[in-house]
Amino acid sequence: MSERIANELLKSKVMSADEAAQFINNGDAIGMSGFTGAGYPKALPTAIANRAKEAQSKGDEYKVDVYTGASTAPDCDGVMAEADAINYRMPYMGDPSLRKSINEGNAKYQDIHLSHSPQYIEHGFLPIDVAVIEVTRITEDGHLVPSSGVGNNVEFLDHADKIILEVNSWQSLDLEGMHDIYRIQKLPNRTPIPINQPGDRIGKTYIDIDVNKVVAVVETNSADRNSPFKAPDDVSKQIAGHFLDFLEGEVKAGRLAYDEYIMQSGVGNVPNAVMAGLLDSKFENIRAYTEVIQDGMLDLIDAGKMTVASSTSFALSPEAAEKMNEQAAHYAKHIILRPQQISNHPEVVRRMGLIATNGMIEADIYGNINSTHIAGSKVMNGIGGSGDFTRNALISSFISPSMAKGGDISAVVPFASHIDHTEHDAMVIITERGVADLRGLAPRDRVKKMIRIANPEYQPLLEEYVEAANKGSALATPHDLSQAFAFHTRFLETGSMKK
Amino acid sequence: MSERIANELLKSKVMSADEAAQFINNGDAIGMSGFTGAGYPKALPTAIANRAKEAQSKGDEYKVDVYTGASTAPDCDGVMAEADAINYRMPYMGDPSLRKSINEGNAKYQDIHLSHSPQYIEHGFLPIDVAVIEVTRITEDGHLVPSSGVGNNVEFLDHADKIILEVNSWQSLDLEGMHDIYRIQKLPNRTPIPINQPGDRIGKTYIDIDVNKVVAVVETNSADRNSPFKAPDDVSKQIAGHFLDFLEGEVKAGRLAYDEYIMQSGVGNVPNAVMAGLLDSKFENIRAYTEVIQDGMLDLIDAGKMTVASSTSFALSPEAAEKMNEQAAHYAKHIILRPQQISNHPEVVRRMGLIATNGMIEADIYGNINSTHIAGSKVMNGIGGSGDFTRNALISSFISPSMAKGGDISAVVPFASHIDHTEHDAMVIITERGVADLRGLAPRDRVKKMIRIANPEYQPLLEEYVEAANKGSALATPHDLSQAFAFHTRFLETGSMKK
Repeated sequence: MSERIANELLKSKVMSADEAAQFINNGDAIGMSGFTGAGYPKALPTAIANRAKEAQSKGDEYKVDVYTGASTAPDCDGVMAEADAINYRMPYMGDPSLRKSINEGNAKYQDIHLSHSPQYIEHGFLPIDVAVIEVTRITEDGHLVPSSGVGNNVEFLDHADKIILEVNSWQSLDLEGMHDIYRIQKLPNRTPIPINQPGDRIGKTYIDIDVNKVVAVVETNSADRNSPFKAPDDVSKQIAGHFLDFLEGEVKAGRLAYDEYIMQSGVGNVPNAVMAGLLDSKFENIRAYTEVIQDGMLDLIDAGKMTVASSTSFALSPEAAEKMNEQAAHYAKHIILRPQQISNHPEVVRRMGLIATNGMIEADIYGNINSTHIAGSKVMNGIGGSGDFTRNALISSFISPSMAKGGDISAVVPFASHIDHTEHDAMVIITERGVADLRGLAPRDRVKKMIRIANPEYQPLLEEYVEAANKGSALATPHDLSQAFAFHTRFLETGSMKK
Repeated sequence: MSERIANELLKSKVMSADEAAQFINNGDAIGMSGFTGAGYPKALPTAIANRAKEAQSKGDEYKVDVYTGASTAPDCDGVMAEADAINYRMPYMGDPSLRKSINEGNAKYQDIHLSHSPQYIEHGFLPIDVAVIEVTRITEDGHLVPSSGVGNNVEFLDHADKIILEVNSWQSLDLEGMHDIYRIQKLPNRTPIPINQPGDRIGKTYIDIDVNKVVAVVETNSADRNSPFKAPDDVSKQIAGHFLDFLEGEVKAGRLAYDEYIMQSGVGNVPNAVMAGLLDSKFENIRAYTEVIQDGMLDLIDAGKMTVASSTSFALSPEAAEKMNEQAAHYAKHIILRPQQISNHPEVVRRMGLIATNGMIEADIYGNINSTHIAGSKVMNGIGGSGDFTRNALISSFISPSMAKGGDISAVVPFASHIDHTEHDAMVIITERGVADLRGLAPRDRVKKMIRIANPEYQPLLEEYVEAANKGSALATPHDLSQAFAFHTRFLETGSMKK
């Protein structure tokens, strides 16, 4: 048996994943570890999927509600969705099979702000039966050393009736010390979260649990899902260039200093291009208060450009994950992994005065942002933490190529077909065409900026819409509602937003 | 000269409003006091309007940008809008003349979260030239005792080049002691705001300023704009009844105790009906952490039901305003007026675990909320603080009659024509038809709840829309975008959303 289980009581609970899955009943709500493909359970999901298939073969039902930190992986959400084992899912997902099931009207999915999701558990809005949590190791005292993500693990462990632990020996033992586990006080006696700077540590390096709730411990040795890193393409580099110009402009205006930039960054290739750009910039002592550690941040740390990155999880390429596993002790000096309630907490985010930078599907001419749905109906992933950071940032920014799908989709539309961030929240929007700085602008002045960063192929169609909208009787935020979704209905009918 | 100006230097600056207005130039940005019709300057706005009219008569331009705390009054926003003296206005307004000017495409209006607006000033996103601030009195040391609202006064006074003070002897001297003036630290050295409970006082009872920036002091004796209080009608009483049932349900579920309710409440007759309902309820030791003190709160305080109400301003009827002026010393034991940056701060709101209750124009079948625009284009007032409270509340609720305009407008629509609060933020929606508790529900399960609280006259039309939407190819959040705004286009064409 693995030396990673030092507690005698929990040693006695070691069993196979199939045996452990017997503790999970049809209809149960399961709180699973996992955030952006890191730290999710590797064995139980398949065992749950097998139970579902077995039940179906007998004409019985076996479905569960699955809560996580954020997205997981094919061997977690994927296998369960393919076995039709998921009834309800929250707060975020990104798995192709699960996405398909949701958009086919099968699995139910509630897309919740990542900082709100732990509140749903703590305050009993959503019941929880079983916590299934991956850990790096279990100490003699029964304390859990988390693995590559913390997410909602603390809340799941605190509120579940039963606990199943997966001890994954693929995770580096040197992750120990990187985590900062802090519990927000219970109402009505809450006090401030004492984090003033991204690097502040306020908690313990382990999660203490009621070991008597543990019904099973399962040993695994499996890699996290790590998405390959793509080198930035030309469009991403142009967007990154505009973003850096924007930062330089803030410095020139006296609103930012070269050593004051605190970054929050969404996941993806454009954000990674921004980080690559920062390597050669004048910005120094960059800090991140964000929800995921990406390849670009490790590069910034390696180059001495970034002093500290606070997050709740990793989202690394296979190469970067390997580097992390080899040098975790080194990176622990620069990286802190917190519960997502803390990494995304409005209190701390607002205090930091950070600059939030997230991707989007589309923005409308007034700066409302769609982060989640294609043509209003089809969910892609979810809002994730983008709302937590956007609303509370000092400056909120969104970055996206001006077109997608080979030009058939415009990132600037007359009316966003799903609104995840409102005109009150988005300050700066950037495409490869330039920067639309919407701060201090009334709606009709925003339109000019937004059309300027739209792709020229769509600019005439947007101008046409605005002209028609301005003929209406109310000109505060002019819309022609009969044509507001014409881009989208055309796309659904013809496959292109172009006329 | 009034004994209310005890400082010798500032005494020497006393002059008429017309003289003071000479310090305000064409193109200036003015930070004015004023929040929900309380504490706005009573004399300068008319003087500014007169300067604009005079300039126009000579063929010259005289327009200013006006920032406030929130809404003001006919003798403030009204006179300036009628004189076409306003170029740009933020962060909130509610004046009929100004609304008309904005919707005619004349005045520019940016509708900003009330907690964000002071950041725009502090961080230099919006420049500010002159602060025009009403006060109750000026102490010997040149400290300002605020009047019936605090709003953004501190930020305006700190960041303006010039200060004009209005000393209004209508305001009770006994307001002194009611205010709690606290400045958030500047970046990058911010620390927590040390408010743990609504009644905590953390600052001073006055605003200290650089007296050398004061260019004029104007004496006034004018009442605040106070809106008449209407006795709750039957629909309001029904909504209030459902809201109280909802609270009772939370108590039964163990998620709330009778002495734990912390209230945030939007302004209006339905919220006042809720407060009237609380008078006869089992809830005790109610506290408010909110942005305005309304008649209903004074009644709750008088009845011993409410122990403390924290806000930034008053929004009282003339009768209640009179009572306040007579008994301010008494009410100061129960009421705290803070800067709106503090009253609406995400950090403090989230810490409180309060229940937010705001009005709305419409909600869509998935729980997206329109708080600001009729049929997408015509702005009514603004988002105000509803976003600050909704996003950070423990439970966010919206209350509205199911129909408006004699039945021609449905409060439940297929797609909200402007979205101020997203499906991620709205938890509970209440009409006189009942409660739609959306917590833990995926989009298609939300639809059923929302249609149940729609008016029966509109239920078949909503069912029809949902049926068509469900025929689409993506069923995560089914929409038929070609018909999504049919309710609104029908209303614009025929004057009714009915078929």
